[in-house]
Amino acid sequence: MKKGILATLLAMCTQVHAVEGMWQPHQLPAIEAQLREAGIAVDPKQLSDLTRYPMNAVISLGFCTASFVSPMGLVVTNHHCAYGSIQYASTPERNLLQQGFLANTLGEELPAEPTLRIWVTESIREVTDQVRAGLEDTQDGAARFDAIDRAQKTLVAQCEADKSYRCQVHVFHGGAQYFLVRQLQIRDVRLVYAPASAIGRFGGDVDNWIWPRHTGDFAYYRAYVGPDGKPADYSEANVPYRPKAHLKVQPAGLEEGDFAMIAGYPGRTNRYRLSEEVSDAIEWQYPKLIERLRAALAIIDEQTRGREDAAIKYASNVSQLNNALKNYQGNLDGFRKIDAVAAKAGEERRILEWAAAHDQAAGIAGFEALKAQLAQQRTTRERDQLLTLLDGMPLYAAARDLNRLAIEREKEDALREAGYQQRDEPRLQGRLQQLDRRWDPQVDRALMQWLLGQFIALPQAERIPELDRWIAGGEGEATAGQLAARLDALYAGTQFADADKRMAWFNAKRREIESADDSALAFARALLPAVLRIEAETQQFQGEETRNRPAWMATRIAYAQAQGRELYADANASLRITFGNVQGYVPRDGVRYESFTDLAGIVEKHTGSDPFDATAHQLDAIRERRFGPYAVDGSVPVNFVADLDITGGNSGSPVLNARAELVGLAFDGNYEAISSGWLFNPVLTRTIGVDVRYMLWVMDAVDGAQRLLEEMGLKPAFGR
Amino acid sequence: MKKGILATLLAMCTQVHAVEGMWQPHQLPAIEAQLREAGIAVDPKQLSDLTRYPMNAVISLGFCTASFVSPMGLVVTNHHCAYGSIQYASTPERNLLQQGFLANTLGEELPAEPTLRIWVTESIREVTDQVRAGLEDTQDGAARFDAIDRAQKTLVAQCEADKSYRCQVHVFHGGAQYFLVRQLQIRDVRLVYAPASAIGRFGGDVDNWIWPRHTGDFAYYRAYVGPDGKPADYSEANVPYRPKAHLKVQPAGLEEGDFAMIAGYPGRTNRYRLSEEVSDAIEWQYPKLIERLRAALAIIDEQTRGREDAAIKYASNVSQLNNALKNYQGNLDGFRKIDAVAAKAGEERRILEWAAAHDQAAGIAGFEALKAQLAQQRTTRERDQLLTLLDGMPLYAAARDLNRLAIEREKEDALREAGYQQRDEPRLQGRLQQLDRRWDPQVDRALMQWLLGQFIALPQAERIPELDRWIAGGEGEATAGQLAARLDALYAGTQFADADKRMAWFNAKRREIESADDSALAFARALLPAVLRIEAETQQFQGEETRNRPAWMATRIAYAQAQGRELYADANASLRITFGNVQGYVPRDGVRYESFTDLAGIVEKHTGSDPFDATAHQLDAIRERRFGPYAVDGSVPVNFVADLDITGGNSGSPVLNARAELVGLAFDGNYEAISSGWLFNPVLTRTIGVDVRYMLWVMDAVDGAQRLLEEMGLKPAFGR
Repeated sequence: MKKGILATLLAMCTQVHAVEGMWQPHQLPAIEAQLREAGIAVDPKQLSDLTRYPMNAVISLGFCTASFVSPMGLVVTNHHCAYGSIQYASTPERNLLQQGFLANTLGEELPAEPTLRIWVTESIREVTDQVRAGLEDTQDGAARFDAIDRAQKTLVAQCEADKSYRCQVHVFHGGAQYFLVRQLQIRDVRLVYAPASAIGRFGGDVDNWIWPRHTGDFAYYRAYVGPDGKPADYSEANVPYRPKAHLKVQPAGLEEGDFAMIAGYPGRTNRYRLSEEVSDAIEWQYPKLIERLRAALAIIDEQTRGREDAAIKYASNVSQLNNALKNYQGNLDGFRKIDAVAAKAGEERRILEWAAAHDQAAGIAGFEALKAQLAQQRTTRERDQLLTLLDGMPLYAAARDLNRLAIEREKEDALREAGYQQRDEPRLQGRLQQLDRRWDPQVDRALMQWLLGQFIALPQAERIPELDRWIAGGEGEATAGQLAARLDALYAGTQFADADKRMAWFNAKRREIESADDSALAFARALLPAVLRIEAETQQFQGEETRNRPAWMATRIAYAQAQGRELYADANASLRITFGNVQGYVPRDGVRYESFTDLAGIVEKHTGSDPFDATAHQLDAIRERRFGPYAVDGSVPVNFVADLDITGGNSGSPVLNARAELVGLAFDGNYEAISSGWLFNPVLTRTIGVDVRYMLWVMDAVDGAQRLLEEMGLKPAFGR
Repeated sequence: MKKGILATLLAMCTQVHAVEGMWQPHQLPAIEAQLREAGIAVDPKQLSDLTRYPMNAVISLGFCTASFVSPMGLVVTNHHCAYGSIQYASTPERNLLQQGFLANTLGEELPAEPTLRIWVTESIREVTDQVRAGLEDTQDGAARFDAIDRAQKTLVAQCEADKSYRCQVHVFHGGAQYFLVRQLQIRDVRLVYAPASAIGRFGGDVDNWIWPRHTGDFAYYRAYVGPDGKPADYSEANVPYRPKAHLKVQPAGLEEGDFAMIAGYPGRTNRYRLSEEVSDAIEWQYPKLIERLRAALAIIDEQTRGREDAAIKYASNVSQLNNALKNYQGNLDGFRKIDAVAAKAGEERRILEWAAAHDQAAGIAGFEALKAQLAQQRTTRERDQLLTLLDGMPLYAAARDLNRLAIEREKEDALREAGYQQRDEPRLQGRLQQLDRRWDPQVDRALMQWLLGQFIALPQAERIPELDRWIAGGEGEATAGQLAARLDALYAGTQFADADKRMAWFNAKRREIESADDSALAFARALLPAVLRIEAETQQFQGEETRNRPAWMATRIAYAQAQGRELYADANASLRITFGNVQGYVPRDGVRYESFTDLAGIVEKHTGSDPFDATAHQLDAIRERRFGPYAVDGSVPVNFVADLDITGGNSGSPVLNARAELVGLAFDGNYEAISSGWLFNPVLTRTIGVDVRYMLWVMDAVDGAQRLLEEMGLKPAFGR
């Protein structure tokens, strides 16, 4: 976006570094001064109240954030957050991903993918006392883990007594605080509108994490409830949900330097990890994962070459692996830029020095004990990384879940292992049902050959005897030759390709599962003792961690307070707010990235082939300059960057202006700051958002979605 | 480089589009108004006088430009222009490319590569009347070609009567004007100083054509002459040449927006080509060349794999092919951006309309006749592109030259074919001598198999009967099977691998060559009738072109004059001046490239491995901020861009400020504007230069070249 010289000049003068922090709503009054300085125009207290505008309009899709934008339950989120539903509603004759979709009436709105839920946060209540009750007297790690686990499950079960609600205990500062979140769970969600992928996914994987960007990453859902106003399964009789509030859409958008904030559900950060956890990630975990993911990709490529059907099954997997690779590489690039380990170690040293001088013996002891725990943990890191990869292998995972579920089902629900409780069964069932959509035996076998080959190359101390025994068919370390023969038998002797068989097993009793003559079930059964043993070790570790990490975090919090700083907790998928200003950045010497892109960039990037295949319809509108009221300086702003602190899970989050009006949607972070998940880089960290003016222009000038504009209280500029 | 806000603001306000034009010195007074507007502070008339400062200090290396910078014949040019000499002076024990080189005394200065010459332009004289005398009465193309060729050779021979001089007739506007250039030819050139490649070639091929850049692309030679002051072969008795003038080095450098100009020897542009020549390039020549160069690269890769020795021989060739590929692709990218054919056709239409209304029948006729010529030429474009590639095959080229030279030597020198005159013999001899440095029979055979395979796939109308006969060993179209057998015989039956044999042939009589029992000589001899026939056709074409293109260009000149514009001629390796201002650019939506880079970018790009392997010594100097007086806003400017109009051949050209003082060296153009060779893009075209402050900082703070600073009249800031 071209700007007046004065505005640019002012923006340059006022440029400040990005503000680190994903704040819990209740913390906002404590940082009011910072918010005011950045330019907020509403009372921060208002943002702390989940029953008031705007926070009661900010909702979760589980893996993404969304918000209500009309009194009729209209929901806006990212196109990539609605991708599954658009795909689900597509047919070979009617490819909605390609064409886009617009319901012209409520009746035309299409069911979202069956597992999609909308969660409306109604309350967040601190439950630290309940969760940690009596914990001071429990020293043993496993016992601590059990006590916390039991307390959490009890709280959740009580909270979920009303089946309309879903509850969850969120852990803060490694166990220093626990908050119980209660969310209305809306089960009938419908797809209302999505632009064509040529707009909604413009740039695709190529532009993923890249600024400057030109992606119309937005789509609309609608929440439906039963005629009684309560959540209900899909039914034609259902009616649009009437949210307590919805965001006001501000078509004026933002300008360079403007205050901006984001409310949403960031998934996970590692900002308070010890320096040795950072060095483990940099020196071992990421490089090793990069090596392994590359190997896996090469195998998938080799095994699917010329096999269109298998290639399609693994397409999503390949995309995820490539995405992860780019992420890991981005982390390493970022770490190098800031010398992350040295920075973390320096910070740690300063805190320890301060702690020693300020009566923080417990924190120092926690730090030392945690270090000892981590040193122990690293002795099996090779095995553990391989186990994580094994857990992602579809055949093994299906057999593992069936075995485990059969066992857990014999317990009282509250005592079942997390992930295998009654509340988890629909998810497990769905995954089992759809196994063959993402699984091909030939590819699976090649991957298993490679992966199990790494297991049998492990040093003695990290080996899994149960796996050796399964492969060798007896005692002693397994060999590669034995592995090949064992895998032949595994893939010849399993019936998992048969969906009816799988679903029958899902409903089978433990006895039936354990006596079933299936090589995959037998494999999972053979490994189960190892899984349970390692699980117990992990719980022991985590139980001890709930003593050590909170002690250390208490010292970090005290240190921050001594400096007059409020500390925010690492992201944990709970509701947070981040704020800052619209501003570009300098990615490297001699290059400046502007804060806004505009339609010119779409024309520039257009090649005619995916992912840069703008539609002729859109290109015509640009060429003919049908911009309506959405233009600024002769073009329509498309995407923008602001120095906000988000992470995965924030996708779809509303970007709000100083008056808490919707001016865009967050949909990505920039590549240069991927490593900010570990160590915030104030110079380079930016949130990439889709500009409300682009959203409205696409809806009005390109896609004819005037009905929705009117529903959001806006006046369309173009005829239908 | 960080700039004060006011300066940036001013720069933004005054930003103008790049000024197209490579001006002949004598044209400058005619464009004085433009020069003044851009900010020149010397009288343009001064720049027209080759006997005065600064033009008499701007010299040619043949393929590069350079300039005198001291009264003792010190010459500055690009590192990449001195690369061959640095390589030549290196030994396995003393790799000057890697270490860099600095002579501490005159006595330590090293001989440049033997073929290197310095050409000091002493006069440029229009000789159009002499060259075109009587041409109006000559209609036949071949006769016209011969008449022009004879006139040129006569002028050159007269001019070169004094053996200290080298003369050349440059053709302007396709034959509308001819200028005779007389240059003093200095044969004893010595290498004085070159930074390490880690500075001089920082970024290497990766950064080639890329802005932002951080390359210290400079090096120093010195010109030596005999004790009598006249050019002489290398001798210890020689003394430094005392140039009539040398450029004043201005250590203050340039700032954003400042006037800048470049004097140098740009090689070739195609700005006045017909629109159908542009479309032929875009739609056929470049895509076809890209396809063929890729095929050649794949063959070289395959044939040199695991053969270190062969790989080294082809390394330079591979680098050139990759460079050409990037160039061709850059041209296509650039053409797409500006819709080049449409732009050219529109311009053509406007000129034709104006011509029709302004009594320009001769120009219109010339245009039409030229179109007819081009249509005819395109009927053999496939064959002709293949012949160009064949001409680049080392074995064939060597055999071809020996055959041809033997024939031409029987003629009077003035009647010999250009390229085979006495003056060309040293060059031919050197190339023959060094054949095995860039030739491997196995690679050559594979390339020939592929290339000749394309010839025998040509349609009937484009086939070369002599080639068919050589392959088939008789009449009829050759087959692939015959080709393989013939190539077996070719490589088995040649003695070109024997350098003594080659050099004996170089001195042999025609009769000896024609009776020599060598398969490569026989191959070239078999093709010779075809070569001569096609050469005659080409001369016929060019002779006709000297009637048609000048007629059309005369109309273009008249059209420009009618609009009050001066027209400059396409580049032709003659001395030109281009001017403009220091300014960055917007390569694509959302991105702004600044006009200066600084030392921070070297640290950012440094990976420790070639081509981003800055020396520890340099990195220390940066870390310790030993910047001396060369710093601006806390760092030293490294490279910069200005909207000047240059092309290949301009490498090493001095960048001059408004007072014609040296403030940097041009060393590259930007990728976004590669296609400006065909159609100038005023928004994107930039010259990339190395900043004088970086040159001086490297010399003073890194390499200890204080002797040279003092010789240039500067005061070093650091001790030796």
